[in-house]
Amino acid sequence: MRKDVYYGEYLQLDKILEAQLPESDKEGIDAHDEMLFIIIHQAYELWFKQIIHELKSVHVIFNKNEINDNAPDLYKVVHRLKRIATILDVAVHQLSIMETMTPLDFLDFRNLLRPASGFQSIQFKIVEAMLGLKLENRFGKEYYVSQLNAKDKEIIRVTEEQSSVIEEVNKWLERMPFVDDTSAWDGFKGTDDKSTNFWEDYRSAYKASLTQGEKDNMERFEKVFFEKEFTADRRFSNKANRAALFIMLYRDYPLLQLPYQLLNLLLEIDELMSMWRYRHMNMVHRMIGMRVGTGGSSGKDYLKSALDKHYIFAEIAELNSFLIERRNLPKLPANLEKRLGFVHG
Amino acid sequence: MRKDVYYGEYLQLDKILEAQLPESDKEGIDAHDEMLFIIIHQAYELWFKQIIHELKSVHVIFNKNEINDNAPDLYKVVHRLKRIATILDVAVHQLSIMETMTPLDFLDFRNLLRPASGFQSIQFKIVEAMLGLKLENRFGKEYYVSQLNAKDKEIIRVTEEQSSVIEEVNKWLERMPFVDDTSAWDGFKGTDDKSTNFWEDYRSAYKASLTQGEKDNMERFEKVFFEKEFTADRRFSNKANRAALFIMLYRDYPLLQLPYQLLNLLLEIDELMSMWRYRHMNMVHRMIGMRVGTGGSSGKDYLKSALDKHYIFAEIAELNSFLIERRNLPKLPANLEKRLGFVHG
Amino acid sequence: MRKDVYYGEYLQLDKILEAQLPESDKEGIDAHDEMLFIIIHQAYELWFKQIIHELKSVHVIFNKNEINDNAPDLYKVVHRLKRIATILDVAVHQLSIMETMTPLDFLDFRNLLRPASGFQSIQFKIVEAMLGLKLENRFGKEYYVSQLNAKDKEIIRVTEEQSSVIEEVNKWLERMPFVDDTSAWDGFKGTDDKSTNFWEDYRSAYKASLTQGEKDNMERFEKVFFEKEFTADRRFSNKANRAALFIMLYRDYPLLQLPYQLLNLLLEIDELMSMWRYRHMNMVHRMIGMRVGTGGSSGKDYLKSALDKHYIFAEIAELNSFLIERRNLPKLPANLEKRLGFVHG
Amino acid sequence: MRKDVYYGEYLQLDKILEAQLPESDKEGIDAHDEMLFIIIHQAYELWFKQIIHELKSVHVIFNKNEINDNAPDLYKVVHRLKRIATILDVAVHQLSIMETMTPLDFLDFRNLLRPASGFQSIQFKIVEAMLGLKLENRFGKEYYVSQLNAKDKEIIRVTEEQSSVIEEVNKWLERMPFVDDTSAWDGFKGTDDKSTNFWEDYRSAYKASLTQGEKDNMERFEKVFFEKEFTADRRFSNKANRAALFIMLYRDYPLLQLPYQLLNLLLEIDELMSMWRYRHMNMVHRMIGMRVGTGGSSGKDYLKSALDKHYIFAEIAELNSFLIERRNLPKLPANLEKRLGFVHG
Repeated sequence: MRKDVYYGEYLQLDKILEAQLPESDKEGIDAHDEMLFIIIHQAYELWFKQIIHELKSVHVIFNKNEINDNAPDLYKVVHRLKRIATILDVAVHQLSIMETMTPLDFLDFRNLLRPASGFQSIQFKIVEAMLGLKLENRFGKEYYVSQLNAKDKEIIRVTEEQSSVIEEVNKWLERMPFVDDTSAWDGFKGTDDKSTNFWEDYRSAYKASLTQGEKDNMERFEKVFFEKEFTADRRFSNKANRAALFIMLYRDYPLLQLPYQLLNLLLEIDELMSMWRYRHMNMVHRMIGMRVGTGGSSGKDYLKSALDKHYIFAEIAELNSFLIERRNLPKLPANLEKRLGFVHG
Repeated sequence: MRKDVYYGEYLQLDKILEAQLPESDKEGIDAHDEMLFIIIHQAYELWFKQIIHELKSVHVIFNKNEINDNAPDLYKVVHRLKRIATILDVAVHQLSIMETMTPLDFLDFRNLLRPASGFQSIQFKIVEAMLGLKLENRFGKEYYVSQLNAKDKEIIRVTEEQSSVIEEVNKWLERMPFVDDTSAWDGFKGTDDKSTNFWEDYRSAYKASLTQGEKDNMERFEKVFFEKEFTADRRFSNKANRAALFIMLYRDYPLLQLPYQLLNLLLEIDELMSMWRYRHMNMVHRMIGMRVGTGGSSGKDYLKSALDKHYIFAEIAELNSFLIERRNLPKLPANLEKRLGFVHG
Repeated sequence: MRKDVYYGEYLQLDKILEAQLPESDKEGIDAHDEMLFIIIHQAYELWFKQIIHELKSVHVIFNKNEINDNAPDLYKVVHRLKRIATILDVAVHQLSIMETMTPLDFLDFRNLLRPASGFQSIQFKIVEAMLGLKLENRFGKEYYVSQLNAKDKEIIRVTEEQSSVIEEVNKWLERMPFVDDTSAWDGFKGTDDKSTNFWEDYRSAYKASLTQGEKDNMERFEKVFFEKEFTADRRFSNKANRAALFIMLYRDYPLLQLPYQLLNLLLEIDELMSMWRYRHMNMVHRMIGMRVGTGGSSGKDYLKSALDKHYIFAEIAELNSFLIERRNLPKLPANLEKRLGFVHG
Repeated sequence: MRKDVYYGEYLQLDKILEAQLPESDKEGIDAHDEMLFIIIHQAYELWFKQIIHELKSVHVIFNKNEINDNAPDLYKVVHRLKRIATILDVAVHQLSIMETMTPLDFLDFRNLLRPASGFQSIQFKIVEAMLGLKLENRFGKEYYVSQLNAKDKEIIRVTEEQSSVIEEVNKWLERMPFVDDTSAWDGFKGTDDKSTNFWEDYRSAYKASLTQGEKDNMERFEKVFFEKEFTADRRFSNKANRAALFIMLYRDYPLLQLPYQLLNLLLEIDELMSMWRYRHMNMVHRMIGMRVGTGGSSGKDYLKSALDKHYIFAEIAELNSFLIERRNLPKLPANLEKRLGFVHG
């Protein structure tokens, strides 16, 4: 017989609600808003823990010997990435609470926090690392490393050693059947009834779709999909890029719907994290103007430079440059169509 | 010399991030979403703590011997109620995260939680009590009481003993100068150049504004503003109602702007809490259908009945029934106008 | 050679931006906020037009001789219902703009609008009718009918004559293969290795899952899934209910994922429309208190009574009462599992 | 006797709902999502019209001979800027509807729109111009000008000739009493009981508040508040900057509350417009990748460069760099305090 569960005990509210110790209280300074400052950061950390919980389960699924498309594996990945996006959406919205603290209210306790800083949120760094942001690709990595204590640095190192979502997605795309499997394309006739190779056919169709100012795109097309050297230092290989484009083009087929949602969610997560950084940057700008951050950073300027470098899945977004109009899409051979659908009868 | 502050220690993340112990883990049952269930409730409790922090400071201000309109007192009350509204807005939005948990996912661990229930959130009850919801006015109070342990019942009892926001606002409205102060109205000439009494004049103007189907409103008008017996068991006295209407009508004057914002924020908070209950009810309905709540309540039906009874500031909303068109408003005497503005020169 | 397209002409902004003629202007009355009142209603009507555009395409798909699960048919239905949900979410949020108009600002022009009223939004009625709300099931249908002119009444009558989403979904559920197809269940062994019939097996499992207070649910179970008389006057037949429950229980299988999303979106749309009505009701309450609506309705009370009656897909939500824990779910026979997945090899 | 008003006629829905003519219809091409594309842009244009309506009324108020602090003038300005912020918030949210259109869906009709482009939204340019963005300060002004037809160029020229919000706010700040009025400071004793000049005193206090890395801020302090040459080519004069800082520091006093809200709203509007541009840029990036915009722009890159240059009120945000802790603020002389409050007795 199980013991009765009581709400407050189940949630361990004694720990949660006793964990606010304003520095201003210790100093006997009146700073009403420090409580808000503590609580909103704790709320963020709770959500980061949840995001890590989801990312860990995604990691486990992607590292199974074989992802079973007929079992809930891929569905779970998609569902959990969707949840992460929903959490990030609330996280962005939640900044509106922080914005009720005016610059003067913040000054009441700001100097008591030195040299602590939001850069020390190790969980946020773990989220970025699990998604695939490498320390070496971070803006201002020296500053960033200098902010962390030894234990936290080690945590990041260990996290980076494991495969990240971006690497796992690259592998999963490379394993995607059909794309490079000649037998699957048996009977393919191309747009012009002559070509028997999908990619040759698509190359012509894409070329035909370019306007005057876009001629350079052709060169890029070759690099992204066919030049090994080009993708050597990128996150996605030629093969993975081809698979991703194939998914984007034919996502109407049942088998490709979850894969398409997955790619979309990666972009959505990237955008939401970017949005979070952007609103956060604006808020910091409004809060401290051109003063130095509590942790000694250059404040707004640091955050701004990080904006662009910290996109993780930009290579996927780039693939949208290589779409053509649906009505010009090469028709798939009957046998392949069948394999992208369900068994009937 | 102060000790260096480190982010994780400052926020006591060791406590916050170690406070998730899923019941399913104890039982060796696989229930991925119980982590979400715990964390979202903890996030809510953090926000409730913040709301209580704000309400306590409002309580202190309202209980000063005299609220100083020329010092930041009233501004602080307004600013903090505004923050509470912002938090509630995020709290409503946050339900979208809970909605990513499907009914089947919830069933994975739902039975392990009995007889715990969200009704046991003592902080939410404190928020309601501090605003002014009395235990005796709650829907299903027997059930409600039965859910709490002795310690929590005592906390509610003590909270109810202190003055609540609604009582404090009533007193503050009763103290509002001008409204019933005949000297302030010196020189008043009324709409028709005859009446010398503001309320007589307004009564006629209101009567003239009513349409066919609204004749009963006149009787209500008398009750709300002038019949002691009627307001005896209500939260706002006749006098407070008159002051509140005066504020609504002449809120364009500088002195009345903060008071107007205050009244508006009380309505906004009521609506947001109602919205929270409503979306929560819909979510419960979708999650458990017509099954009994973990705490033994009738689930959705309980929540639905609570919707209407738990409006706290409905009497203020009702006053909007007694407005008239701005262009028909009686003009204030010059001396009173001056007192509602600033000193110049 | 096509003519160059220019932004303003393409969008016909001459029509759109010249369509605001405040009544207060005609009367020479100063009522700054009437412009807002007109524009927000026009924005709503644009969105209603878009929703109708999506619903029409859903209607066309559902009325094809056969919905092709291997072509984008079902995907399109899901994608467009999702868009409708997104629009409704913005529509709810958009009320916050209306809320910047205070009751006194509204009074500046309110009386000039009689007897017009939001009840006369024929497009919103069309949306409700296309989803499946029948005139005869509306709260206060006499009042509702009295508000419309002859042309608009005729539009509603014609809309109701066509099949609605709820009827189309019922038919689509009835067509769902497997559920009642004995050959599909070949090899089924049930939880206890004895039962050979899925529904017998499930009935026992569900019964075992009920707690003390839920014994009545068993009777309901029989009615919903097996008693023809019971579903005679409901929107979903026994057969459709069984199919819907099957989808909910086994939505992890690839073939059932889009169907599951479809059912979920219907609930989401219902909730968002309900949320819209609820916030709208609160706003009306705050705006006019207990006064009569411009169209002569009882204002808030009317809206409140409509809240509950206007849920369209409540029967689907109810099915969540009949789920059991995933770990107790009867295992599907191998052949059926295969048919719920993709062809491989 | 007025004619009865009917909802659809009042809103001129015949114009509004007949103004959608998809180019794909003309070409007989199936492009379901072009309707969405048209309607969302029309909804944006409606909101831009509303914003212009509010900005025009703000312009009228600011150009009265004297803004009357005791009449609703300033309150109206604040209330209407607040409404603009609320509209922009919905406008940002509304992008989520556009995001339900996938890149492939857009391609169905994208090429039919050339060379139209969102850059041709003349109303959005008017909003920017009315707030204070000058053509000469726009990123890529040649491209921008090349997009507009002669009539629209003329509209912008005329709009720029009138005073903009930023110029009006500068003048209004310069008119702010007290700040430079020595008589108002009679009895001022400074933090150290020695200084008799507020700004000297504040200069010392600010200097004392700077940390190691912030020494350059002192030079900036002098420039912003006291060097005429520095502010010669800026939007805010030294005098206006001093008044704005004074408002930020002493906003707790009744007279300064509306002015403080006004400054805050300008920053909020700037941020929301920036957020709109940022999310829009991300969406364009996702939609067309690295392809050229329909109007021939460089697409995402153009939008990105515009982000930073198009902040209008950055000079106000910068003032937050010059705050000091509230507990170190110089105390105002009694007489000034009185003038910042209300008349009593």
